[in-house]
Amino acid sequence: MLSRTSHDRMANAIRFLAMDAVEAANSGHPGLPMGAADIATVLFTKVLKYDPSRPFWPDRDRFVLSAGHGSMLLYSVLHLAGYEKVTIEEIKRFRKLGSLTPGHPENFVTEGIETTTGPLGQGIATAVGMAMAERALAARFGKEVVDHHTFVLCSDGDLMEGISQEAADLAGHLKLAKLIVMWDDNHISIDGPTSLSGSTDQLARFSASGWATTRIDGHDPEAILAALEAAKASDRPTLIACRTTIGFGSPKKAGSEKVHGSPLGAEEIAATRVALGWEAPAFEIPDDVRAGWSAAGAAGAAARTAWESRLAALPAEARAEFDRRVAGTLPEALEGAIVAVKEKAVKDGGAIATRKSSELVLDFITPAVPEMIGGSADLTGSNNTKAKGAKSVTPDDFSGTFVHYGVREHGMAAAMNGMALHKGLVPFSGGFLVFSDYCRPAIRLAALMGERVIHVLTHDSIGLGEDGPTHQPVEHLAALRAIPNLLVLRPCDTVETAEAWQIALHSQDRPSALILSRQNLPLLRTDATAENRSAGGAYEILAASAKAQASLFATGSEVSTAVEAARILEAKGVPTRVVSIPSFELFLARPAAERAKVIGDAPAKVAVEAAIRMGWDAIVGSDAAFVGMTSFGASAPAKDLFTHFGITPDAVAARALDLLRQG
Amino acid sequence: MLSRTSHDRMANAIRFLAMDAVEAANSGHPGLPMGAADIATVLFTKVLKYDPSRPFWPDRDRFVLSAGHGSMLLYSVLHLAGYEKVTIEEIKRFRKLGSLTPGHPENFVTEGIETTTGPLGQGIATAVGMAMAERALAARFGKEVVDHHTFVLCSDGDLMEGISQEAADLAGHLKLAKLIVMWDDNHISIDGPTSLSGSTDQLARFSASGWATTRIDGHDPEAILAALEAAKASDRPTLIACRTTIGFGSPKKAGSEKVHGSPLGAEEIAATRVALGWEAPAFEIPDDVRAGWSAAGAAGAAARTAWESRLAALPAEARAEFDRRVAGTLPEALEGAIVAVKEKAVKDGGAIATRKSSELVLDFITPAVPEMIGGSADLTGSNNTKAKGAKSVTPDDFSGTFVHYGVREHGMAAAMNGMALHKGLVPFSGGFLVFSDYCRPAIRLAALMGERVIHVLTHDSIGLGEDGPTHQPVEHLAALRAIPNLLVLRPCDTVETAEAWQIALHSQDRPSALILSRQNLPLLRTDATAENRSAGGAYEILAASAKAQASLFATGSEVSTAVEAARILEAKGVPTRVVSIPSFELFLARPAAERAKVIGDAPAKVAVEAAIRMGWDAIVGSDAAFVGMTSFGASAPAKDLFTHFGITPDAVAARALDLLRQG
Repeated sequence: MLSRTSHDRMANAIRFLAMDAVEAANSGHPGLPMGAADIATVLFTKVLKYDPSRPFWPDRDRFVLSAGHGSMLLYSVLHLAGYEKVTIEEIKRFRKLGSLTPGHPENFVTEGIETTTGPLGQGIATAVGMAMAERALAARFGKEVVDHHTFVLCSDGDLMEGISQEAADLAGHLKLAKLIVMWDDNHISIDGPTSLSGSTDQLARFSASGWATTRIDGHDPEAILAALEAAKASDRPTLIACRTTIGFGSPKKAGSEKVHGSPLGAEEIAATRVALGWEAPAFEIPDDVRAGWSAAGAAGAAARTAWESRLAALPAEARAEFDRRVAGTLPEALEGAIVAVKEKAVKDGGAIATRKSSELVLDFITPAVPEMIGGSADLTGSNNTKAKGAKSVTPDDFSGTFVHYGVREHGMAAAMNGMALHKGLVPFSGGFLVFSDYCRPAIRLAALMGERVIHVLTHDSIGLGEDGPTHQPVEHLAALRAIPNLLVLRPCDTVETAEAWQIALHSQDRPSALILSRQNLPLLRTDATAENRSAGGAYEILAASAKAQASLFATGSEVSTAVEAARILEAKGVPTRVVSIPSFELFLARPAAERAKVIGDAPAKVAVEAAIRMGWDAIVGSDAAFVGMTSFGASAPAKDLFTHFGITPDAVAARALDLLRQG
Repeated sequence: MLSRTSHDRMANAIRFLAMDAVEAANSGHPGLPMGAADIATVLFTKVLKYDPSRPFWPDRDRFVLSAGHGSMLLYSVLHLAGYEKVTIEEIKRFRKLGSLTPGHPENFVTEGIETTTGPLGQGIATAVGMAMAERALAARFGKEVVDHHTFVLCSDGDLMEGISQEAADLAGHLKLAKLIVMWDDNHISIDGPTSLSGSTDQLARFSASGWATTRIDGHDPEAILAALEAAKASDRPTLIACRTTIGFGSPKKAGSEKVHGSPLGAEEIAATRVALGWEAPAFEIPDDVRAGWSAAGAAGAAARTAWESRLAALPAEARAEFDRRVAGTLPEALEGAIVAVKEKAVKDGGAIATRKSSELVLDFITPAVPEMIGGSADLTGSNNTKAKGAKSVTPDDFSGTFVHYGVREHGMAAAMNGMALHKGLVPFSGGFLVFSDYCRPAIRLAALMGERVIHVLTHDSIGLGEDGPTHQPVEHLAALRAIPNLLVLRPCDTVETAEAWQIALHSQDRPSALILSRQNLPLLRTDATAENRSAGGAYEILAASAKAQASLFATGSEVSTAVEAARILEAKGVPTRVVSIPSFELFLARPAAERAKVIGDAPAKVAVEAAIRMGWDAIVGSDAAFVGMTSFGASAPAKDLFTHFGITPDAVAARALDLLRQG
């Protein structure tokens, strides 16, 4: 056990690094690092299993700073514990362009950061996914190689966000006993005392969701340690309310919202140095403190090497499979499964909804890609994301590959991020496209982090029919395409759906959204080869009978509309081609000359999509005509809606003829 | 008290209307109406204060069906209770194009529907806003004219959505004693038993947030009545867990997810008729049942006329003010206040952030428009939405005009919808633009319903600087502009900010988003007149020195960038004009010829916005150049970021020169 003096000095090192870095940046949040320094010190010196020399050791404990604004807490600890890239120079460059110490923790920038946080509530919900991944992998590979905890430090703000309830529900229900959340219970939010805006008894609330809960003095290292050890022994997830003083140590600003998000000022920092008995100048760490932290950081190497021995002792096949999964590479069998499902689709023919096409694809590929873990936000039968024979995950058995997330889109999307970040699983899930709005902050984070999560979003237009405008996406394709690095795929039939899944799985560094229809669609592609024609984003799916006078562009369910329109136009003597555009992002990534060739130079260009036009000009130019939606939808049978809103083959053909006439 | 037989028959009338309408539509959700028919019957015959002949009577009790998929419950009750537009013919046209009975309840379609529901969790959170509005107006006008309850019927799915926690927190904290939530506790969700995905003790959870809670048999009319009466007497909001059987009465499907969202089928409906002893054919209501419901519906008229007498007894000025507020018309003093703030801005000069401009505007206009009720999601000092002298709403005093919503963007946005729907208040609020993602489903509903709510969204680009990409909106302008009927306003200085507020307040039938900068911006407009130049969406803010060779287009903080670029270009001999575009929606609503005139015919067109290009082509055409973002941002001081991402006057000027060179 560290002496109280050693502990205090090690904690104070965090406090002063945070204060001084925020002061140097003239921007940042000193309050949390100062308040939670004792918690972090106990966690990183006595509890957390980690090895700074191997930041990606698969069986390390995970630590998530859900209150990402307190990033200097994390940078200080990483520096002190010996993560070599987080040098004192980087700490001095806090919040500067290109530093390893950005304003909020970014896992894709800084080794030792497990996930990107800042948007409140995301961290705790992402950690739920990490804890789920741990259990799922332990169920597959055994406790010898997968046996770690997931720790979270969260703030009042994290617990105010609704996503925290979805996360707490899921974690409690699934009995994620190895998830331990430390709540920085400092009674302060940005506006002032938390009593301004809330009076929820958080312990009672988490207890209602099946959590173990306890309350401690967050500045008492022994109490912190005891609570963490009790939490590790619990058979339920644990919430530890750590009563702390925000800005602990600052004579004039501790305990006030003034220390939350602004530099303390030179004078107050000097006063804090006096108050805490800290004589070292800014960015200098006294030798005793440096030694204490170095010893703590070095202690984990033994656990890591022991784990390596256990991994080495696994049968060769299991070990290879473990390594493959952690690396995120796909099994070769996937490619054959994709061709097989294409062949079956072409052989069977007939019209089916692409959500059902997707189910068929999953039936073929999930046996080949066992790391896939599916789910649905309580729309399993509608999203068709449960493959044949997929077993559900239950609180007591994580050997399944399907999660019933409940009506919790946001918690689901964040948990998927956590599973992807954990490594070893490829999460996918189901929801209605319109409700992608409910989980948009988590989808955005996946895109920012570059994580492979796959959102299956069904009922993708007014084609869902009677449920009406609350359930009919109109702007959602545009809104998703707007998110940088998100791959949006809207296939037109079973063959394109197979190709979309293949693309999504191979896109290791970005999330994908598969946009699928509720209504049946004819099979348009009858080539069942290994070639993935969707991979270029757009391609001619129907050639014109002669030099094209009209080019029709469409995605998903409207490709068949365009094909019918082409037949109408051809019958009227207008040579017409159709271009299917399963992905804007993939198409726009191609060289301009290639794109120009796909778009072609027919005098009439008409794009059709049962959605708003926004985003299409980048593909077809603002001189093209567009047949789509300009308002919310309505409640009626799908066929009536397509007629009512004028998204029909006749309407598309008429627009092309108009253009040729005006030509 | 109705006899048990009368009650049962009145409830069964709801069940059969629901079953038969869903069967006729071959689509819909019979399970909830059948399960909750007893609750609705007790509520509408014994508790709810309403008058079908005056659906908009301001002091009626509000009833919100949060589980909007059970719409046939509501349509049945409205029909039976005597809302004359909801005829049996409309019930037969359930889910047909143009009917008054769409798939989910739409308040803008059907009288008697208080809010549009379907997206789960929205109803309960919207009801919180209605209950807040009731208290706020009672504090202003007295209990004689404002004294009603807000009732909610919600489902398991509503309580799974995170927004329900935000709503519960707020309601409990604010002691909204007149909010009564009946939870249709039927243990079934779409995937099957709710135990598949959750095990939260909802009563304990709500109790933790300060609610009174109770559990009853949801098929026992006396228990329902007793619980509702106890809830009305409570000094806290109440959650009543009503244990029900989904699809009650159906011999083969009751209690199963099979009856949730599909027609029962003719055979099962026939069996249910036998089981419940119901002999009337489809869509026919036996006379005794009709009489019972009519009497219940007619009973409210007395309360309404008594209320009218009390309203008439108010002093003339108070009565006129009450009527004005309920009608939603603005006081004339607003227009003078807008001119006054413009004059002050022009007199003071200097550079300030538009979020501060907005605060200045609020200082001037909120005294003139007392129905405005502001707030912030715990960013009051950053959003600048608390006007000088604005008093905070507290649990015990609703005479204030500012709400500390806590870090609950979603609950806030839904509560704002509820306040707007209630009538009598104009809600506005503050958040960071990037976190509009957290409340997007509620913003979308406001747009669909056409409600005047005003979202002040600050920190609107990489201009927020050090907080980094998690906090920097890049795609959010496009994503908000994508929502039909939402008015997005991005003013460039104090004068435009005043105009934006004026436009938003006058937009009675749509929500607005005011997009404001963190960083200081120069005053570009020095005309302080009553003319609102922003009202046309776009206008020339800087004329060229001669016939324009370059037109620069920009919004918000980039208008000053464009103006500087114009000076550079003019210095190089290129006559250049600048067009400010505070609102795409207002501009695109103008005739094409007018738009063409504003866009002009300069050979070089360059648009600049610190965001993605998506949406701009509709304004400037795909042949224009664009200076903006193509990726997520980064953490650094704002100035460094604008340089790093190339959004500078020099870059804009260079693009214009490129275009002229390529000419």
